[in-house]
Amino acid sequence: MSAEKKLAELGLALPTPATALANYIPAARSGSLLFVSGQLPMRDGALDPACRGKLGADLFNEGGQAAARLAAINVLAQARAAIGSLDRVTRVVRLGGFINSAPGFHALPVVMNGASDLMVAVFGDKGRHARTTVGVSELPLDAAVEIEAVFEVA
Amino acid sequence: MSAEKKLAELGLALPTPATALANYIPAARSGSLLFVSGQLPMRDGALDPACRGKLGADLFNEGGQAAARLAAINVLAQARAAIGSLDRVTRVVRLGGFINSAPGFHALPVVMNGASDLMVAVFGDKGRHARTTVGVSELPLDAAVEIEAVFEVA
Amino acid sequence: MSAEKKLAELGLALPTPATALANYIPAARSGSLLFVSGQLPMRDGALDPACRGKLGADLFNEGGQAAARLAAINVLAQARAAIGSLDRVTRVVRLGGFINSAPGFHALPVVMNGASDLMVAVFGDKGRHARTTVGVSELPLDAAVEIEAVFEVA
Repeated sequence: MSAEKKLAELGLALPTPATALANYIPAARSGSLLFVSGQLPMRDGALDPACRGKLGADLFNEGGQAAARLAAINVLAQARAAIGSLDRVTRVVRLGGFINSAPGFHALPVVMNGASDLMVAVFGDKGRHARTTVGVSELPLDAAVEIEAVFEVA
Repeated sequence: MSAEKKLAELGLALPTPATALANYIPAARSGSLLFVSGQLPMRDGALDPACRGKLGADLFNEGGQAAARLAAINVLAQARAAIGSLDRVTRVVRLGGFINSAPGFHALPVVMNGASDLMVAVFGDKGRHARTTVGVSELPLDAAVEIEAVFEVA
Repeated sequence: MSAEKKLAELGLALPTPATALANYIPAARSGSLLFVSGQLPMRDGALDPACRGKLGADLFNEGGQAAARLAAINVLAQARAAIGSLDRVTRVVRLGGFINSAPGFHALPVVMNGASDLMVAVFGDKGRHARTTVGVSELPLDAAVEIEAVFEVA
């Protein structure tokens, strides 16, 4: 099934992607690889307040998954803006997940599943990707998660 | 020399690679690049207890190197499972090393050498790679290190 | 304009790049992609003392930007050493920025702009890149920042 149709079926309207406010861009293509800049759980141009702070202190597994899902929605929005349609994605190659973690919080993969599950919901088997998930001490805007991606595109 | 023969000569039996327990996969190929998901120092399906905790507190340089080497062995196991034989690796392109570090621990490159040295032991000059090594605050399962890789494959 | 001419116009003499002191290399090419290892704000073979420590404690926005710029200069030096001339760079694809952050320091993108701005100063529009910026707990040599890169090269 078309990824764009699947998005519609899921009732997912991708947001207008955030403009980069500096000398970088949201996504850069080289050959068939599209590198998407690290995305935060933004909504309507601002960090979603429910997605601020540290996992294990300010939010927990389910809240973290929702934050990872929202960041991944922004990844998709940037990819679509760069290539015109998600139907041009031939596979999701890699996700990098950075989780803003309080000391002792180790359930990082659980949180990151919020992003991975979205990719498979939208792209099916083509959405299965390599991924790296780590806990970091600080993120921009005190976001709970940051997600970057590499897509293969036609 | 063949990388598979070199493995045998080194007495290194690669483990049965861990199955990803979520909507991601251990390695994803696009063109001639194979992206391997971040691997932990797992042994027999569980985190090696000697490889748990923070560098500079729970384990130190030599223990960290052993953890990095074990994580890199798992990287090789995943790569072989994905492409059938390590002899199809034409070069190791990049390693990313994330070191679970206690405050004030800066000997991150020393730890990461455990992974880099393994690559050169197995692949010779083709094993020399770009790498990035950083200290992070938390890792899945409280692992001491996490290693990801990009290989060029034929 | 030629990137090499632009460097000269900016009065930027790239340093002799640091030699990797282990089984990794400063940059690895695969096809048209050049992966540059994480670089620190080194000057004359040692970490610049003004670029040591944590953002938000030992140095602040402007000092961090200078550290990011210096690390990015070392990225360029390594790229030139690998491919002979920066004029062979057809685009800057991705920067990864790791910022050594004290608790509560969130102005990570401001710091990272020191690296991004340099790329656009040297390469013009070809210098606009995808990027990921995160705060980490420790870096090699207690450096304030570490920058890695992917370039597309001819």
